[in-house]
Amino acid sequence: MPSISGRHFLQIPGPTNVPDRVLRAMDFPTIDHRGPAFSALALEVLTGIKTIFKTSEPVVIYGSSGTGAWEAALVNALSPGDRVLMFETGWFGSLWREMASRLGLQVEFVPGDWRHGVDPSEVEKLLLADTEHGIRAVLVVHNETSTGVTSRIPEIRAAIDRAGHPALFMVDTISSLGSMDYRHDEWGVDVTVGGSQKGLMLPPGLGFNAVSAKAREAAQRSKFGKSYWSWEEIIAANKGGFWPYTPSTNMLYGLREAINMLQEESLDAVFARHARFAEATRRAVKAWGLELLCLEPLEYSNSLTAVLLREHDDADQLRATILENFDMSLGTGLGRLKGRVFRIGHLGDFNALMLAGTLCGVQMGLEMQSIRHGDGVSAALEHLAGTVRRNRTELASVPA
Amino acid sequence: MPSISGRHFLQIPGPTNVPDRVLRAMDFPTIDHRGPAFSALALEVLTGIKTIFKTSEPVVIYGSSGTGAWEAALVNALSPGDRVLMFETGWFGSLWREMASRLGLQVEFVPGDWRHGVDPSEVEKLLLADTEHGIRAVLVVHNETSTGVTSRIPEIRAAIDRAGHPALFMVDTISSLGSMDYRHDEWGVDVTVGGSQKGLMLPPGLGFNAVSAKAREAAQRSKFGKSYWSWEEIIAANKGGFWPYTPSTNMLYGLREAINMLQEESLDAVFARHARFAEATRRAVKAWGLELLCLEPLEYSNSLTAVLLREHDDADQLRATILENFDMSLGTGLGRLKGRVFRIGHLGDFNALMLAGTLCGVQMGLEMQSIRHGDGVSAALEHLAGTVRRNRTELASVPA
Amino acid sequence: MPSISGRHFLQIPGPTNVPDRVLRAMDFPTIDHRGPAFSALALEVLTGIKTIFKTSEPVVIYGSSGTGAWEAALVNALSPGDRVLMFETGWFGSLWREMASRLGLQVEFVPGDWRHGVDPSEVEKLLLADTEHGIRAVLVVHNETSTGVTSRIPEIRAAIDRAGHPALFMVDTISSLGSMDYRHDEWGVDVTVGGSQKGLMLPPGLGFNAVSAKAREAAQRSKFGKSYWSWEEIIAANKGGFWPYTPSTNMLYGLREAINMLQEESLDAVFARHARFAEATRRAVKAWGLELLCLEPLEYSNSLTAVLLREHDDADQLRATILENFDMSLGTGLGRLKGRVFRIGHLGDFNALMLAGTLCGVQMGLEMQSIRHGDGVSAALEHLAGTVRRNRTELASVPA
Amino acid sequence: MPSISGRHFLQIPGPTNVPDRVLRAMDFPTIDHRGPAFSALALEVLTGIKTIFKTSEPVVIYGSSGTGAWEAALVNALSPGDRVLMFETGWFGSLWREMASRLGLQVEFVPGDWRHGVDPSEVEKLLLADTEHGIRAVLVVHNETSTGVTSRIPEIRAAIDRAGHPALFMVDTISSLGSMDYRHDEWGVDVTVGGSQKGLMLPPGLGFNAVSAKAREAAQRSKFGKSYWSWEEIIAANKGGFWPYTPSTNMLYGLREAINMLQEESLDAVFARHARFAEATRRAVKAWGLELLCLEPLEYSNSLTAVLLREHDDADQLRATILENFDMSLGTGLGRLKGRVFRIGHLGDFNALMLAGTLCGVQMGLEMQSIRHGDGVSAALEHLAGTVRRNRTELASVPA
Repeated sequence: MPSISGRHFLQIPGPTNVPDRVLRAMDFPTIDHRGPAFSALALEVLTGIKTIFKTSEPVVIYGSSGTGAWEAALVNALSPGDRVLMFETGWFGSLWREMASRLGLQVEFVPGDWRHGVDPSEVEKLLLADTEHGIRAVLVVHNETSTGVTSRIPEIRAAIDRAGHPALFMVDTISSLGSMDYRHDEWGVDVTVGGSQKGLMLPPGLGFNAVSAKAREAAQRSKFGKSYWSWEEIIAANKGGFWPYTPSTNMLYGLREAINMLQEESLDAVFARHARFAEATRRAVKAWGLELLCLEPLEYSNSLTAVLLREHDDADQLRATILENFDMSLGTGLGRLKGRVFRIGHLGDFNALMLAGTLCGVQMGLEMQSIRHGDGVSAALEHLAGTVRRNRTELASVPA
Repeated sequence: MPSISGRHFLQIPGPTNVPDRVLRAMDFPTIDHRGPAFSALALEVLTGIKTIFKTSEPVVIYGSSGTGAWEAALVNALSPGDRVLMFETGWFGSLWREMASRLGLQVEFVPGDWRHGVDPSEVEKLLLADTEHGIRAVLVVHNETSTGVTSRIPEIRAAIDRAGHPALFMVDTISSLGSMDYRHDEWGVDVTVGGSQKGLMLPPGLGFNAVSAKAREAAQRSKFGKSYWSWEEIIAANKGGFWPYTPSTNMLYGLREAINMLQEESLDAVFARHARFAEATRRAVKAWGLELLCLEPLEYSNSLTAVLLREHDDADQLRATILENFDMSLGTGLGRLKGRVFRIGHLGDFNALMLAGTLCGVQMGLEMQSIRHGDGVSAALEHLAGTVRRNRTELASVPA
Repeated sequence: MPSISGRHFLQIPGPTNVPDRVLRAMDFPTIDHRGPAFSALALEVLTGIKTIFKTSEPVVIYGSSGTGAWEAALVNALSPGDRVLMFETGWFGSLWREMASRLGLQVEFVPGDWRHGVDPSEVEKLLLADTEHGIRAVLVVHNETSTGVTSRIPEIRAAIDRAGHPALFMVDTISSLGSMDYRHDEWGVDVTVGGSQKGLMLPPGLGFNAVSAKAREAAQRSKFGKSYWSWEEIIAANKGGFWPYTPSTNMLYGLREAINMLQEESLDAVFARHARFAEATRRAVKAWGLELLCLEPLEYSNSLTAVLLREHDDADQLRATILENFDMSLGTGLGRLKGRVFRIGHLGDFNALMLAGTLCGVQMGLEMQSIRHGDGVSAALEHLAGTVRRNRTELASVPA
Repeated sequence: MPSISGRHFLQIPGPTNVPDRVLRAMDFPTIDHRGPAFSALALEVLTGIKTIFKTSEPVVIYGSSGTGAWEAALVNALSPGDRVLMFETGWFGSLWREMASRLGLQVEFVPGDWRHGVDPSEVEKLLLADTEHGIRAVLVVHNETSTGVTSRIPEIRAAIDRAGHPALFMVDTISSLGSMDYRHDEWGVDVTVGGSQKGLMLPPGLGFNAVSAKAREAAQRSKFGKSYWSWEEIIAANKGGFWPYTPSTNMLYGLREAINMLQEESLDAVFARHARFAEATRRAVKAWGLELLCLEPLEYSNSLTAVLLREHDDADQLRATILENFDMSLGTGLGRLKGRVFRIGHLGDFNALMLAGTLCGVQMGLEMQSIRHGDGVSAALEHLAGTVRRNRTELASVPA
């Protein structure tokens, strides 16, 4: 094994590179979770996190993974036997569906090809067909981490509205929040599910539910037995800056710092940065002569790019070569994409030269694996160098 | 407010003082949770944690609080409508019962005075009366964090055995694990519930279930809808050093270091240390002329001591005075003990001079609040100074 | 050996307990010492440190120990063969004299009993006798770390002035700066020597020279060959926020944070805190029936207390017992005080309960060593509890 | 200004990227520098550092910059008025000469073109001419940080030997130690000067002198007044694991960890890694169509590469553009090279993708500054990808 030196390139689409500021913020002694210092911390964090979800409604924070936050969304807002509409956008869409089924929900699962987002017109059609309004919720993954394909949340919201359907709208933003534009209130989402370890730049360990008044009202009628995930006890205790049980104090230290960092940079600048790096990555993929998994440019993800190899090339072998020789982790192909796809995470605490190093690592890996390829690095560098000025101008024109 | 300088005295009975070694171990970059470095970490931690629970069976680790681990125990091993035997040992025993009821279990709740542990003979009597074996589980809190009273787990096990009853035996060790002797296998426990933020010396954020073969077998028949908490997927993924969803990587870094520290000191030495500090604390309480909440010496907790004030003295006012003037957090009286009791945590990463400072802070607080008191500090110092040698001899005679 | 758990009590009179805020501030990546980010840091630190020395003149910061800063003071302001007046206040006063001699200065060394500070009237007398003004400098240690005795700097300044003598006035504040009142400008000091590891709450590694215009003017005539220590190159480079050689960047991160902490608490509150803890310590010593090394109450140190044992008691054995059994480091007796004296540091990032724990450790050590003693802890606690209110009132009356 | 996100690329030739392991090791509380725990630390470090200098003789560690260690070497081994031979290899060679002159040494300064190392045959000639052996020392900078040119130490040693000259041989390895092969004993060096902030991967703040018996013997006759730098007191105190004054404890924590890291990787692997990255960098420079400052391939530095721009291109403007737009620090042209040269540091805790990102940053900067250039990145990637296997084979053939 070549010696390990320097920093690992963690280019999976999450967990992402945790900034030193966040790690150091977490590296302070735990405090009394029932005392005044904790209360001040909690109130600051609970207020700040709303600006990230762009909501004025409560955001419930769990000690859990994003998967836990998925479960929390389901067991609060729904009841066993409820009908819900879900979509086969990829591996995570399928996993969420599987969870829903295990919990006893009746899932209408709209099949997909793992290369497109949810089709708003299909949502409209399906809801219009549901004349008795038996469907309780429409559940969409904003950014499919397994495919690098996004779904157009505002258009889906519009579709639900056009259908005049009362279903709750629940959106998973685990790998988009803090990386791509997202607006819980403006887009009329009832439950937004988030996690700490992607655009929020924290280690894994916190899950989030932003919940609308309509969702909370629905939760009053939920028949799921639950305790840990129950929204209302948490929302009630949060008013005073507390939790009904021991919260993950040190993760909250980190969250405070991460929110500060996002606000210092400004969310608009954060989104512009992700867009620029994603475009550079796509240009590299095209110049390599490889295929983007995502087929619809309107649905390109800015958090990650999934790259489809040619039929006889092995993506996992490529990843192993790159990990072994260049100390870089890339995302694997999940489920039906296994061995065909690798994923490049370009989200979180990231900059142009880290991206350049990442793409160089991929290109050297292609070379070492004898995978036919052009010069993607040059294409990416051209875009990065060419957009420095535009990037600035755009930022300058963003309202403060 | 007097200026804040020096280290806060965090003398609540958890979260406890996180050692620098653990904080620094957590302050490393998050790694790929699907890669070989993670797998090596996970396998080391999953093996090591068994030595703390003293079990050869799987220990399931959740990203959650201890409350989450309570829920996990219930929804895996039981089904809605199951009858369970629970005990009013204090606030946490009552909370666990409340959770069980919310989840749809039928709880037979044995009333208690919050000053004694579970009575093994009563367990035997109740189980003998259950001739049809309708009771599915006996649930006991090993160390009631609200009262400083322990329950005698081996004697309760013996009582269940004498009754010849097949109920599962489930024990909460959240505030005893790593501080007081506990033996999952030898004591015949089916599910042991733990948390990270007490004797394990970590920040809050991890919950544990040690599970016997009998418990796993029972889980096959469980009718609870569940996903996040489900044992079997986790146990299966753990075999390769992974989790079915994103684990709390940085907490696992800390757990590895904490296990190392406990093993370096040796669990026997850790327990002897806790016993010595607890006895010194009790001697201080007696010398102050105050009352121990725990009435049965066999049931004294070595993690914390709950102190009962005289009728007209206000424990919360005392705590506030001490926090304001001496920057020390003490545990509040919970539930029916509110205002009557304060709790001194003396567990985790702790030593004789930290205890001495703690007791001095209490004594000065008593003085400032004009609560009549003798010289508890001197009594404690006498015990601490007098047991240095005995402590060593005892340790020397412990088998390696 | 008893197991090590909890925090070490570092009660030597420096290095002192480095606050977590300072350690974490230092735990950031080193930056380019010729770039704009460094320049901003340096200018902030160079401005801030002046408020600690209470000077408007330059403060030169070295990568060195305090001993290095001693040497810097001598080789900049003086020339080989120069006559200087120095005082046997204790071990450090003697060491500084030895350094001066080695460097080729002619030292008139005024003998002392290691239990008093410098006598201002003797300074006056000696300077008056020097009618030809051959003495180039008067060098005084403000706070003798080996004895816990201070010298009265303003009175010595007045003595020099009364004598009408032009000698430079050079003061070592290594163990007083940031703990006791000190005013470089107002007290007319020409060179103030400081170190990072005491009241400044940093690890060792930075030395300081605050230099008056008169000192800089004298330095123009210095005949010492020197390079690393040379003031003028550093002062010139500092104007732009740089150093002539690579500075100790991470220590400067820590210094910025330490200055912020001192300013947040306010120097007046810092000094009041040290005075209160020192008085509590002295009361403990008296109640133990032991002797303070310092014989003159006007000269008591607020940073540390040196305690003289009775003739046949062994202070180093006491220290070893306390270290072994209670994991506390105390200061040893230096030079002629070896074995007779131990020193308690009560400076830096410190609070009442840390002091209480410290004194309990000493008292238990006395007990274990069978050194006859009364109850010093109670005396200290009485003072600490009794001064909470007064302390606040005093602070309230301090002008902002 | 574009927003700052991700990690800064610190590609100056030192201070270098401090590994997280080293930063975290330094982030522990300071301990008593006169106690047994410190002694154990010091003895471990003092032994370990010898393996890095490849010496069995003492290595003196100072709290200082490398400049301080230069001064220490001079004032210990020499006396005012001594004649020494020094070489104009670049900025640092010139600075060291300036220091020597200021300290009162008589320097014979051999002029150079800043593009070659010291010529061994010239050394021989000059020493042969010194028939009376008036020259007391030959001082050489092993790796000129300002030029990226090394001097061939073993050949210079051989030249001295051929001349039969008794002069001391003193070598500055500040920017080579821990990055390029260096052997204090085998190469017959009398004083080797080092610093912490380059190949040793620490923050700045420690200086080193490895000293031969001959150098120590010479030091007995030194007439320089000195105290802080004096070898013998330090060497004597080091025997017990102590220093005569307060050492930089937390830096020593870091040094222990850095030595461990270098030994884990093995020095041979460390040197091979630096050689590989340096060669990739030189290939990039050539492919850009730019000139290496170093004219002699045998003298190429593996720590850094200095790149000479064409006459009308401005290196400082290029550096500013790169810093502003890509958050990367490069080394400036020093002295006569100002504006003509920029320097790429590729030493310390560094890997192939960090180098790739670095070179991409330079290439984009060239593009933005309209400096004519070819595709250096591709040339570097080709070398990096092509040497993975060779690198392994070479390492495998290295004796353990």
